[in-house]
Amino acid sequence: MLNAKTPSRRVVIIGGVAGGASAAARLRRLDEFAQITLVERGPDVSFANCGLPYHIGGEIADRSLLTIQTPASLRSLLHIDVRAQTEATHIDRSTRTVTVVDLRSGQQSQLPYDHLILAPGAAPLRPSLPGIDRPEILTLRSLQDMDRIKHAVEEVESVLVIGAGFIGLEMAEQLAHLGKRVHVVELQPQVLPALDPDMAAPLAQELVRQGIALRLGTAIVSFEASERPHEPVCAITSHGERIVVGAVILSIGVVPESRLGKEAGLALTPRGHIAVNAYLQTSDPLIYALGDVCATPDLFTGEQTNVPLGGPANRQGRTCADHIVLGEKALPYPGSLGTAIVRVFALTAGVTGLSEKRLRALGRDYRVTLVAGSSHASYYPGAESVTLKLLWDPQSGDVLGAQAYGGAGVDKRLDILATALRGRLTIDDLVHLELSYAPPFGSAKDVVNVAGFAATNQRDELVRPVSALPTEPGIQLVDVRGAAAAQELPVEGARNIPLAALRDALPTLEQGMPVVTLCAHGKTSYFAARILAQHGYNVRSLAGGVYAHPELQPTKPSA
Amino acid sequence: MLNAKTPSRRVVIIGGVAGGASAAARLRRLDEFAQITLVERGPDVSFANCGLPYHIGGEIADRSLLTIQTPASLRSLLHIDVRAQTEATHIDRSTRTVTVVDLRSGQQSQLPYDHLILAPGAAPLRPSLPGIDRPEILTLRSLQDMDRIKHAVEEVESVLVIGAGFIGLEMAEQLAHLGKRVHVVELQPQVLPALDPDMAAPLAQELVRQGIALRLGTAIVSFEASERPHEPVCAITSHGERIVVGAVILSIGVVPESRLGKEAGLALTPRGHIAVNAYLQTSDPLIYALGDVCATPDLFTGEQTNVPLGGPANRQGRTCADHIVLGEKALPYPGSLGTAIVRVFALTAGVTGLSEKRLRALGRDYRVTLVAGSSHASYYPGAESVTLKLLWDPQSGDVLGAQAYGGAGVDKRLDILATALRGRLTIDDLVHLELSYAPPFGSAKDVVNVAGFAATNQRDELVRPVSALPTEPGIQLVDVRGAAAAQELPVEGARNIPLAALRDALPTLEQGMPVVTLCAHGKTSYFAARILAQHGYNVRSLAGGVYAHPELQPTKPSA
Repeated sequence: MLNAKTPSRRVVIIGGVAGGASAAARLRRLDEFAQITLVERGPDVSFANCGLPYHIGGEIADRSLLTIQTPASLRSLLHIDVRAQTEATHIDRSTRTVTVVDLRSGQQSQLPYDHLILAPGAAPLRPSLPGIDRPEILTLRSLQDMDRIKHAVEEVESVLVIGAGFIGLEMAEQLAHLGKRVHVVELQPQVLPALDPDMAAPLAQELVRQGIALRLGTAIVSFEASERPHEPVCAITSHGERIVVGAVILSIGVVPESRLGKEAGLALTPRGHIAVNAYLQTSDPLIYALGDVCATPDLFTGEQTNVPLGGPANRQGRTCADHIVLGEKALPYPGSLGTAIVRVFALTAGVTGLSEKRLRALGRDYRVTLVAGSSHASYYPGAESVTLKLLWDPQSGDVLGAQAYGGAGVDKRLDILATALRGRLTIDDLVHLELSYAPPFGSAKDVVNVAGFAATNQRDELVRPVSALPTEPGIQLVDVRGAAAAQELPVEGARNIPLAALRDALPTLEQGMPVVTLCAHGKTSYFAARILAQHGYNVRSLAGGVYAHPELQPTKPSA
Repeated sequence: MLNAKTPSRRVVIIGGVAGGASAAARLRRLDEFAQITLVERGPDVSFANCGLPYHIGGEIADRSLLTIQTPASLRSLLHIDVRAQTEATHIDRSTRTVTVVDLRSGQQSQLPYDHLILAPGAAPLRPSLPGIDRPEILTLRSLQDMDRIKHAVEEVESVLVIGAGFIGLEMAEQLAHLGKRVHVVELQPQVLPALDPDMAAPLAQELVRQGIALRLGTAIVSFEASERPHEPVCAITSHGERIVVGAVILSIGVVPESRLGKEAGLALTPRGHIAVNAYLQTSDPLIYALGDVCATPDLFTGEQTNVPLGGPANRQGRTCADHIVLGEKALPYPGSLGTAIVRVFALTAGVTGLSEKRLRALGRDYRVTLVAGSSHASYYPGAESVTLKLLWDPQSGDVLGAQAYGGAGVDKRLDILATALRGRLTIDDLVHLELSYAPPFGSAKDVVNVAGFAATNQRDELVRPVSALPTEPGIQLVDVRGAAAAQELPVEGARNIPLAALRDALPTLEQGMPVVTLCAHGKTSYFAARILAQHGYNVRSLAGGVYAHPELQPTKPSA
């Protein structure tokens, strides 16, 4: 039973994965009598693209779990016209018509629209390097890509992952789980470039600890055939090194699929995304764009930014459906925070809001607070360490961004801070967040509260943190941990004076020479700094302590 | 080395556990030269009182983990005068002196103060019932109480827990882990009275499933000796039932230890707490009160409320120390939300902000939104169900409170919503919270987003939810789940029309008769209700679905 009534409106949606499918579903719920056509180039719609690495690694054993909907199920549930394996080739804005081609039959047809939604996503970046077209060099975007990689890595012993962003790290982890020898090469001098280098460093350590051959600050300049039968491809690095492997996963980023919009004359951003307003309207108000292809105004800076992630795409789908049906009564899209998270073996890391890198690029004044705590009450079994970096505005105290790494509970702290960002909370507000506390779940003073404490102390000049141990001479380095802890993980050049002994040891510290205090997590060293400051010392405290500074810890591969 | 200099100020703190110890520590960091005296009636200071049930149950095997500090360690770290086993007996406000008695020697002394902090906590309520003084009837507040219970339950096979609040439920769980036969009696018709009955019902089911003998709406009226040698005590219920057990844990609530403050003429609230302002000052501005003994202005209502939990007490300690040293520059205490959480076997449940009960008592207009989702992407292994109840203001859209129960991730959702409450976020803001999403951690549309979707849909009249299945005749009950799910857990009186078949089945549904749609979690039934409403039906959707309504699920003890 196709619409018996005359359709209220004709909406064509190009792209049927996250944002496109969300837009179609919301649209149908708002308007039972709209004529909705969903055009998807691939064979699948609404699949779980974030799950692809985990099927390759075997954690999601059942492939069918990833196909949330099929074209047929979407058709029957939403009562829409789903055209899979169909490519949109041209938009005629004057006649409000999209030309589409059925990729199986080659048949071309015209789809008239009242509203058009562009949700084509982004394509993996494939730089034009010598040898790039070798069959062993794979990218991951669709279920078919996934199947290809899964099949390809079955037969090989070693894999090179190019790019240590979110997908690259997930792939590295999953390939290692499969028992492959894994190489990771990243152009930047750090993994996970969305994070600041200090917060990404522990992830690099974890990769090395897990036996991954990690090369930072390294590009691949070309690919060649190798001599080895089971490792047929050789990647040559910018340092001239030859990495011989069985397969290559290219995950250096994505480019928006904005060609169709561009050819239709829609305004693009300098980086090639389709520019949209808060209702996801492009420069043609009848055409919307969402997800990886579009750039929305940033929540903080107002500049057009793209966050190529599933959460924003899904919610943008809702926004543009609302705007088509409800007009200005629709809730505008508030801009993205860029909240993102990744698990890398035993570590989890993530970010929300602005990073130090971005703040610096924006020329914005900010302060950094680094703290460490435990995922739940330290006296209850299973507590894991969480290190949190908070960025805030020294004038207003507004929280600007946060990054975290650690074990359990990193996701929770990021989500608390993402919510704080949405509510424009200040560091004072973090002091009095009243989070759930029972021993298995939290602490009386959660690490987010502790970040509020430390940041307000910093603003109120109760403590002056240092982000790294000073290397210049003429500084008294005082390790205020207990003697056992200080001996177990000693810090070079530091004198151990446990906090309880500090007041009695004051006569042995020189008043005229600066002091830096340090401890395990940055709390005891702050206590020590308060004592010293009030006794007239020029003192700073190592923010986050030894555990937030991987350079102070020995790295060894785990047994 | 006691203070060489003349002390800057003399502060006496009565009570050295959570709030008192926090106040002392913060005070010392702000003022190295204050003379601080900490008076504690018990032998221990700053112990982990929230961990006590878990040592009894053996989860925290090492008792020493619970003693965060000892009087000696606190003395040396904070350079303060710690007087354990010392009771404050009188406050003379005219001479600013506290009289204290050393409970070991009986020796009395006078402590002069410039500022006095009252942090004596609260005592377990012990109603004057016949037989209440029997030695088998125990309460849990201190480490000594814990030791007594641990020892007492070693030798018994059965225990009666009176009161199904947070501590009662934790004790019931731990005692069951020890293999005891556990009875729980609760006066209210529900467990965990801080929650609304609908959100507490699954916990009651879980207790029963785990073999706990639960009696709701039941009081204990007296205790007697029993005949059985290993079960020496018999508790007689308001229904005349005799419960014969080896030991009794009394956990029906606490009374503030406000006698000292009351005798000193400080203003109390009608419920007997010491009234304080946002800086924790009592009616005498030189005397502060914090923690379980005090009532602070409620964040929403302004009325004096007490939240007897560790988090607020700790942060209040900080606030009053700040006010003593910094005066009005101190950050005021913003009021408590009453965020609380408990684990009961496989279920976790908690609350933040106002409950429906409290909103009703306040005579305040509100709306309820009930949704269910999964702890992380449902296609990734280990996802557990989370049911979320959101309370919001129909005029402003402000979030007023939230409750949740389920498996993993309940704590995260409560914390997100506690942060949203602190930021005074609306249901529109929840729609666009940008939470961390990777398959092991979250979903593209988190259950908190889904709560925002559902609440805004409700406000915008896209859906009219019902909170329980109607029992009156003349309503068409339509179960829109797939046939397999509907057969596995059938709902009496409902006709199964899977969503995909609904449009074709419209001619078989009567237009003039109201329809209620239902499904597993309340999402598909909403989709169905949208179809029906737009086709002219008078339709409502069962909020939260079958899984949020324990009365629609069979209860059976687990094998």
